[in-house]
Amino acid sequence: MIERLCLIGVGLMGGSLALALRQRGLAREVMGIDVDPANLAAARERNIIDAGFSDLRVGVEGADWVVIAAPVGATPGILAALLPVWRDEVIYTDTGSTKADVIGALERILGRIPSNFVPGHPITGAERSGAGAAEPGLFANRRVILTPVAATAADMLERVDAMWRGVGASVTRMDPAHHDEVLAATSHLPHVLAFVLTEMLGRKDEQQEIFQYAAGGFRDFTRIASSDPRMWRDICLANAREIVPLIEQYREALGTTAERMRLGDADGLLQLFSAARSARQRFIDQLES
Amino acid sequence: MIERLCLIGVGLMGGSLALALRQRGLAREVMGIDVDPANLAAARERNIIDAGFSDLRVGVEGADWVVIAAPVGATPGILAALLPVWRDEVIYTDTGSTKADVIGALERILGRIPSNFVPGHPITGAERSGAGAAEPGLFANRRVILTPVAATAADMLERVDAMWRGVGASVTRMDPAHHDEVLAATSHLPHVLAFVLTEMLGRKDEQQEIFQYAAGGFRDFTRIASSDPRMWRDICLANAREIVPLIEQYREALGTTAERMRLGDADGLLQLFSAARSARQRFIDQLES
Repeated sequence: MIERLCLIGVGLMGGSLALALRQRGLAREVMGIDVDPANLAAARERNIIDAGFSDLRVGVEGADWVVIAAPVGATPGILAALLPVWRDEVIYTDTGSTKADVIGALERILGRIPSNFVPGHPITGAERSGAGAAEPGLFANRRVILTPVAATAADMLERVDAMWRGVGASVTRMDPAHHDEVLAATSHLPHVLAFVLTEMLGRKDEQQEIFQYAAGGFRDFTRIASSDPRMWRDICLANAREIVPLIEQYREALGTTAERMRLGDADGLLQLFSAARSARQRFIDQLES
Repeated sequence: MIERLCLIGVGLMGGSLALALRQRGLAREVMGIDVDPANLAAARERNIIDAGFSDLRVGVEGADWVVIAAPVGATPGILAALLPVWRDEVIYTDTGSTKADVIGALERILGRIPSNFVPGHPITGAERSGAGAAEPGLFANRRVILTPVAATAADMLERVDAMWRGVGASVTRMDPAHHDEVLAATSHLPHVLAFVLTEMLGRKDEQQEIFQYAAGGFRDFTRIASSDPRMWRDICLANAREIVPLIEQYREALGTTAERMRLGDADGLLQLFSAARSARQRFIDQLES
């Protein structure tokens, strides 16, 4: 049981966690800290938090758990603000989409990786954002990846693990660098591709109204381009080292495909599309198993 | 009322059309022609067709409507088979995803663009294919684009238009070349992007099992990569002239984005992602209006 949870960032992720913990009786009090007063008001309105604060140092007072659920670009500033009020008995964790940069920020700003910070990342999301989008079922049957380092206290790690299982998630542990490598492929690259396509076609649509002839496939394909732009800016900057080489690899693969079309290479195209369809079937089978 | 519809290709598109027409009492008899005997058997089983034929010339006998609903690569062969049994009082139409190539094939194979062939394209689909995937509601509230040319008979055009409206679609008329240009952007390019990504990540997954860490966003983004590979091979070959330049433009845009990440250009990335999100909102607003 969490006595007093302090949530730094009361958006989709943090708000949903608070709702899920409350619904299952796993957290007694929730204090919310957010830079956006309207978002804090919405969170109070929906009973996601008991009280809202714009001043982080006031908000964390008396908390036994602190969860950072802000865009990853905000992490260094949050850690700097936490530094003077850091307490060894508190459990700190986060929900950031990239992990090596968060651990780097801990080292840089706190001068060490504290044993009571458990880096985490729930693999879930939605194109909506903010406290208004929060929902208690967001983590049910989802994966959470925890990326402890050598310094991480085993008991703190175990308690964060138990918290996520408590809200219905299954927990995997992974090396932070490996996390960033895997997520660059399965999440960051697809988001970049969707953003770039939607922006490019948006410019075409302004000239000749193409969107009215787009159908359900396009809606699904571009859904992730409705994700929070600031959050994705931060992820792209934090994990550029993994994402950029994947973009280059993808550009190469696209170039080969265009060449096959140019040459009328029917077999090459069929092979590619068939391999893609099989790969997706493998993914779907895993997702449903 | 259609007395005897001859469906050339009894897949998702043709099968759904037959079901929709029958359900609304708009077609008395449906003859199905397909290269795949198992698919024909499934179509008979589901009462999509009254009789199935592998021999096109036998199947079209006595039909007053002929709908070609095969992958566009099959169109030239189908037209060549129809040529000796072509009748001026029959209405011919098709559901092909590309239009300039179909019209080109008419000219090449029939020596003219017949007045009783109305080129058409329903903007709908699913990642499933075959007669088993057919459903009578596939065209409800969807768009159908008809691309008549100067030779197209006005009364035939009107009757094909009425047929599509009869199964719930709204009909737009468009120049064939413009159709191919618009669909290259809203449909063909996204499909190619999804196929290429899924194939590339599929190879990574074989090495280090990344798919288990992919979530709902990835499922939606790659849904169209489960589409019929042969159909998409044909589309890519038939419309390479429009698709290839779009791929090059997209590779360029991706390169710029990667460069922004490399340079840490936070403002540039935020601007791009925000523009993408706004463009998608414009698309969604249109889709729902």
